Amino acid sequence: MKKRIGLLTSGGDCQALNATMRGVVKGLSSNLPDLEVYGFADGYRGLIYGDYRMLTSMDFSGILTKGGTILGTSRQPFKLMRVPDADGLDKVEAMKQNYYKLRLDCLVILGGNGTQKTANLLREEGLNIIHLPKTIDNDIYGTDMTFGFQSAVDIATDAIDCIHTTAASHNRVFLVEVMGHKVGWLTLHAGIAGGADIILLPEIPYDIDRIVEAINRRAQRGAGFTILAVAEGAISKKDAKLSKKELKEKMKNYKYPSVSYELADQILKKTGIEVRITVPGHTQRGGSPCPYDRVLSTRLGAGAAKLIMNNEYGYMVGIVNGKVKKVPLADVAGKLKMVDPDNQLIKEAKLIGISFGD
Amino acid sequence: MKKRIGLLTSGGDCQALNATMRGVVKGLSSNLPDLEVYGFADGYRGLIYGDYRMLTSMDFSGILTKGGTILGTSRQPFKLMRVPDADGLDKVEAMKQNYYKLRLDCLVILGGNGTQKTANLLREEGLNIIHLPKTIDNDIYGTDMTFGFQSAVDIATDAIDCIHTTAASHNRVFLVEVMGHKVGWLTLHAGIAGGADIILLPEIPYDIDRIVEAINRRAQRGAGFTILAVAEGAISKKDAKLSKKELKEKMKNYKYPSVSYELADQILKKTGIEVRITVPGHTQRGGSPCPYDRVLSTRLGAGAAKLIMNNEYGYMVGIVNGKVKKVPLADVAGKLKMVDPDNQLIKEAKLIGISFGD
Amino acid sequence: MKKRIGLLTSGGDCQALNATMRGVVKGLSSNLPDLEVYGFADGYRGLIYGDYRMLTSMDFSGILTKGGTILGTSRQPFKLMRVPDADGLDKVEAMKQNYYKLRLDCLVILGGNGTQKTANLLREEGLNIIHLPKTIDNDIYGTDMTFGFQSAVDIATDAIDCIHTTAASHNRVFLVEVMGHKVGWLTLHAGIAGGADIILLPEIPYDIDRIVEAINRRAQRGAGFTILAVAEGAISKKDAKLSKKELKEKMKNYKYPSVSYELADQILKKTGIEVRITVPGHTQRGGSPCPYDRVLSTRLGAGAAKLIMNNEYGYMVGIVNGKVKKVPLADVAGKLKMVDPDNQLIKEAKLIGISFGD
Amino acid sequence: MKKRIGLLTSGGDCQALNATMRGVVKGLSSNLPDLEVYGFADGYRGLIYGDYRMLTSMDFSGILTKGGTILGTSRQPFKLMRVPDADGLDKVEAMKQNYYKLRLDCLVILGGNGTQKTANLLREEGLNIIHLPKTIDNDIYGTDMTFGFQSAVDIATDAIDCIHTTAASHNRVFLVEVMGHKVGWLTLHAGIAGGADIILLPEIPYDIDRIVEAINRRAQRGAGFTILAVAEGAISKKDAKLSKKELKEKMKNYKYPSVSYELADQILKKTGIEVRITVPGHTQRGGSPCPYDRVLSTRLGAGAAKLIMNNEYGYMVGIVNGKVKKVPLADVAGKLKMVDPDNQLIKEAKLIGISFGD
Repeated sequence: MKKRIGLLTSGGDCQALNATMRGVVKGLSSNLPDLEVYGFADGYRGLIYGDYRMLTSMDFSGILTKGGTILGTSRQPFKLMRVPDADGLDKVEAMKQNYYKLRLDCLVILGGNGTQKTANLLREEGLNIIHLPKTIDNDIYGTDMTFGFQSAVDIATDAIDCIHTTAASHNRVFLVEVMGHKVGWLTLHAGIAGGADIILLPEIPYDIDRIVEAINRRAQRGAGFTILAVAEGAISKKDAKLSKKELKEKMKNYKYPSVSYELADQILKKTGIEVRITVPGHTQRGGSPCPYDRVLSTRLGAGAAKLIMNNEYGYMVGIVNGKVKKVPLADVAGKLKMVDPDNQLIKEAKLIGISFGD
Repeated sequence: MKKRIGLLTSGGDCQALNATMRGVVKGLSSNLPDLEVYGFADGYRGLIYGDYRMLTSMDFSGILTKGGTILGTSRQPFKLMRVPDADGLDKVEAMKQNYYKLRLDCLVILGGNGTQKTANLLREEGLNIIHLPKTIDNDIYGTDMTFGFQSAVDIATDAIDCIHTTAASHNRVFLVEVMGHKVGWLTLHAGIAGGADIILLPEIPYDIDRIVEAINRRAQRGAGFTILAVAEGAISKKDAKLSKKELKEKMKNYKYPSVSYELADQILKKTGIEVRITVPGHTQRGGSPCPYDRVLSTRLGAGAAKLIMNNEYGYMVGIVNGKVKKVPLADVAGKLKMVDPDNQLIKEAKLIGISFGD
Repeated sequence: MKKRIGLLTSGGDCQALNATMRGVVKGLSSNLPDLEVYGFADGYRGLIYGDYRMLTSMDFSGILTKGGTILGTSRQPFKLMRVPDADGLDKVEAMKQNYYKLRLDCLVILGGNGTQKTANLLREEGLNIIHLPKTIDNDIYGTDMTFGFQSAVDIATDAIDCIHTTAASHNRVFLVEVMGHKVGWLTLHAGIAGGADIILLPEIPYDIDRIVEAINRRAQRGAGFTILAVAEGAISKKDAKLSKKELKEKMKNYKYPSVSYELADQILKKTGIEVRITVPGHTQRGGSPCPYDRVLSTRLGAGAAKLIMNNEYGYMVGIVNGKVKKVPLADVAGKLKMVDPDNQLIKEAKLIGISFGD
Repeated sequence: MKKRIGLLTSGGDCQALNATMRGVVKGLSSNLPDLEVYGFADGYRGLIYGDYRMLTSMDFSGILTKGGTILGTSRQPFKLMRVPDADGLDKVEAMKQNYYKLRLDCLVILGGNGTQKTANLLREEGLNIIHLPKTIDNDIYGTDMTFGFQSAVDIATDAIDCIHTTAASHNRVFLVEVMGHKVGWLTLHAGIAGGADIILLPEIPYDIDRIVEAINRRAQRGAGFTILAVAEGAISKKDAKLSKKELKEKMKNYKYPSVSYELADQILKKTGIEVRITVPGHTQRGGSPCPYDRVLSTRLGAGAAKLIMNNEYGYMVGIVNGKVKKVPLADVAGKLKMVDPDNQLIKEAKLIGISFGD
């Protein structure tokens, strides 16, 4: 059976993109002698402008452990547009034309939430689409786990571990800012794994007084230091009550690079303790995928290969209760999987004394 | 509420034993002001001979990342004995006496399958028991995951990664022997994560000719090297058919340190290719637990704390479909969770071209 | 022979402080049966206020790999004072009194440049002093290498490695800010090891136009991304010409958290390219010492032990051309070892195409 | 200026081969617009049989961190032959012919001792040769350090670290076999870095009774476990006295896979303690080079580039007292740099209580 498939990676990069593509292509090429694989450069940009190259099995050899993406990625298009763009190009139409010009049997798209929405749009336009859930945020609805997440947890935890020895030696308060603007899974897991004392998530607005109490409680018990794991999108109860307009107004004159710095300032004012801030930033997306992610990626990739061999399209390949599952894109596109403040993991963390500032 | 609990770690050591005990004790001490914790030295040995010390929260500070066990461990008693031993001591009776002498509310036992059997025996004898599933083998029935497993996967994968660069440079056949005498989960995951070409498990007997074919197939495709991930307990189809007596006879004159060496010899004879063998051995049990294991351990520890606070005993605390669950010891003690040759992960691995020699 | 020695760790913490103390104490206790070791808490603070505890060989067991310092550290006293302080305490006198009260044979002091100055002052006051050169900056005069340096290089390099995969996938300009306010050894080594394209050091003032040229040159050659390793203390040629007063004036209204952000802003303005910034920060001081540092620390510690056994005091123990050497404190205290812009390593880096922006 | 250079990597592979070649080629291509680089496959084999390909700067992009060698390597020719081989080929003559046929300006050869001898032979035959000292053994005369060594130290130390937690939990004796048949630098450094209690090197024959004493001494002091770091080539005092013929006779009926197993057997017989053996094996050659090695490799590569630009040939590029130096091949070829039993590092190790079994 002959198949012509297109591959692209879109959105912020993360670990295991290559491992996942390898899974798809090894799965197909081990079973279909007449496979042709086209890789689009820099995400949807390559599909829009017809920037692609043919890939052979050599391209997928030795990339299981390689970070980043051999195809490149970009955040284009930022918005879904069915009408011509400023440059006069109808991008959705352009993508469809390139798909048909190459006579693709399907398009395998690796990306996060934004990518998924566009993938679903292309599906609605009649293209055969398989989506693979990539993100260090683990915020994709319909799958228990996304690839990239555990590797990012490892890196963020490693940062907290390093801070731990320095904090314990100096009796200081340290804050590690973990990636995650809207959802807190990464901060939650890295915070627990790193032994953070206080964990602040976008989903659980904090009260600065609760945080100060937690710091003081530790000091009274003789623990000379406190470590906070704070998501980029952590928000105070006060700010959480603001309207979008009010929040925008606040941000206009915001003097801090991020909420971590505002928080550090508040803690200093209320306790007299200086807070040291660490921002691992983009390192959390980089490096070689961890073994957990490599197994997950290989499984999802193999799952995609199987769907393609069965001519089943329009699905995200996810993992649910340990089993690889096909999930209709129509059911999940655009939905976010957030941390429920009442979920079991939060309760367990609270039981062992971790404060969420609420 | 006052509680007096005993803690012990038994069997082969692994990562995250300390992290799990920290979870239990942090969970209890954050909620019970009058907690007393007794730690028994070297597993059941300490319980038998009354070798214990009282532990404070200081003992559990900073041990989240610490490998090994602060209590020590041993494989005693090797067999369950209700009758007096050679030394005249009824060990079960001795354990009960020490339990009652210390007026323990319960005994928290961390260990693998053998440990679990003894734990269940003590439960049958009327003691309040909580068991926590520790093993790098992930072979404990009733839980999807054991702590120690993912950390061991990381180390074994790391060994395969190192071998990969050397194998690719030399065009050689390499064999990495992974721990696991009876079950192959560790080899299966590390093999997939490390990109092994051939994976041999105790549950899937191999045919040497299939292995030779897989090596030759790679050579024909221009891949100059082949990597085998082989469980300690890998077995040939021929040997799998032997009776226990015949196998024992074979082993009497067995000239190889392990099956890996026999296999290497056979491959050499059949292909003329020399096979290099690497044995990471006990390193797979050592070092700091990976972040995944630290989260798992903290969750299981918190789960144990909650049971104790509710006076619910006689359970293993496991994780099923992502949720911490109490599992009656009576239902699971003595059962092994093996790799089903038809499970989804095996099928996925085969789909992408991995040979299991069957 | 009986000896009573005091130990303290002062200044910013780093890796291998514990490994070094272990070397000292193992060296002495293996040879002197009647050793007494007193550990002062939090650097000179413990010596000033008489906050110490007696240490046994148990305290030094298992700490070879442990980050931070088991004694704690602080930056007190910030300034050397021979006159009474605001609190009426003559701190130098207080240190001397505690030294004599404990009848110490010598004081072993681990620390960087500031610590060394105070150590030399105490030597001038008649105390028996051994100094061990600790700093991630490797800026201590009289020794080729300080412990902590290579471990920090490893962490900073790891950050650049992670950024590399993400930069290559996104075709972006990334900037990694490496610790080092006055000297650039850490940035220089991490920059070369991480494959940075542009390295900016405090010792080599940069011209923003040279940096822009280097970025453009790479773009022209088809390399889609550029990575800058920038020391905290990197400075432009323009700023390097300012008087202290003018610089102070500039900093008064400085709107950037650090020079990296100013630089990113300038690059954006001159090229239209957005620069992503990563700040590994205090992680560079943390975690387990690398094997290189452990060997170095053990050697320096053993060297200190030998001096003490010979009653030779007033020295820093350094390493020169691969040999452990005693270096008179009087000769080196207060001197900084900076990167000479003409040194061989800089020339080698330039030869392979690395830009220093000069 | 136009240059045509050949590159080959020969002998056992190790880390930083690619990093070194990148240094050479980046150094040359940043300065010589008309550079042509020919890479020979699998060491001297490629030179003998004319198996080569032209390399562009693309081939050297992104390989700084890549383990192994992009050129492949082999141990051919095992012996230096100036007379025709069994296959009728005069290999030295064949190498010369290919060198002249490609009109090479020079040949850059990366390898260890054996490789160096052949390189010197080719120099004597009139070829322009630069040798770069590669080996995890650090046994090349004329340079303080070889690339690969520190990376191998890191891996071997990591193995000892992992064993440490398991040893401490079980109160056992563990033996880690470290690579090194003739020289012990790797075992010495990894042993010290890993905190081994007993270190056995080829250069310091051991007495089994001294080893037993050291184990017992630890047990008496309450340390429940002992760790031995043993070089592959460790030898007993008794065996060290045998003639070559007697030793060969002994090895004929040797029943152990390596001296580690013999040693374990002897310890068991003399103390009743079972010794667990770990053999990290070829992992010590694999994986990404550590930052230390990447800096060293870049320096040596840049040094080679500079020599080539100056038309200076017949040298090994080494590092002496921190400076890159050209070392005449004629002066060093065939000489081994062994561990002097009286060197400072050995004395320091003994001072802190490490036993060498002598």
